[in-house]
Amino acid sequence: MAAAREGGRDRVPPHPDVQDVGLQRVLEALVDPVRRRIVAELDAAGADLSCGAIDLPVSKSTATHHFHVLREAGLIRQYYVGTSRMNALRRAEFDAVFPGLLDAVAAERART
Amino acid sequence: MAAAREGGRDRVPPHPDVQDVGLQRVLEALVDPVRRRIVAELDAAGADLSCGAIDLPVSKSTATHHFHVLREAGLIRQYYVGTSRMNALRRAEFDAVFPGLLDAVAAERART
Repeated sequence: MAAAREGGRDRVPPHPDVQDVGLQRVLEALVDPVRRRIVAELDAAGADLSCGAIDLPVSKSTATHHFHVLREAGLIRQYYVGTSRMNALRRAEFDAVFPGLLDAVAAERART
Repeated sequence: MAAAREGGRDRVPPHPDVQDVGLQRVLEALVDPVRRRIVAELDAAGADLSCGAIDLPVSKSTATHHFHVLREAGLIRQYYVGTSRMNALRRAEFDAVFPGLLDAVAAERART
């Protein structure tokens, strides 16, 4: 449904309901510092960002993998604008199921 | 200081201040399901437990390793009573630095 709303539905990958994502998958996603950085940058920006707009110390294909893991863990929603793949942090949905976790990630960024 | 208070100071291993434990170390500790089970059992018991009192699907030496990782991540405090190594969940200290995380672990146990 969300995919249809976002447009470009053929290219929009599937997104799980956060309710259906277990804590194991969430922790596996967030244990990686590059993935926490993506989450923290999206949170700090307060806006959706294209993959290329987030400066990461990894190759483009590795970055794509990290975005994929975050999407499957229910942390981000991806959609296309033209040829740009955009990323939206699913903050409210995620906080409703796992309160405090994203605050910890944001606080870590603020400290460093 | 805490070690001295607990008695048996020579055998009490060092414990970090939770403030000094980074989110990386905390997530590495909690990403393991056996370690989350230890944390959840201590939380559900609402009391300190000896290592042997927690039923785990691993060998004794592997369990000892898991307790060690939890101690170094600031999640549990260990002390001796006679020859029993006891484990105390550092709930209040941990919640003060990482609010929500232990609630997520407890909620996961409640669901399963």
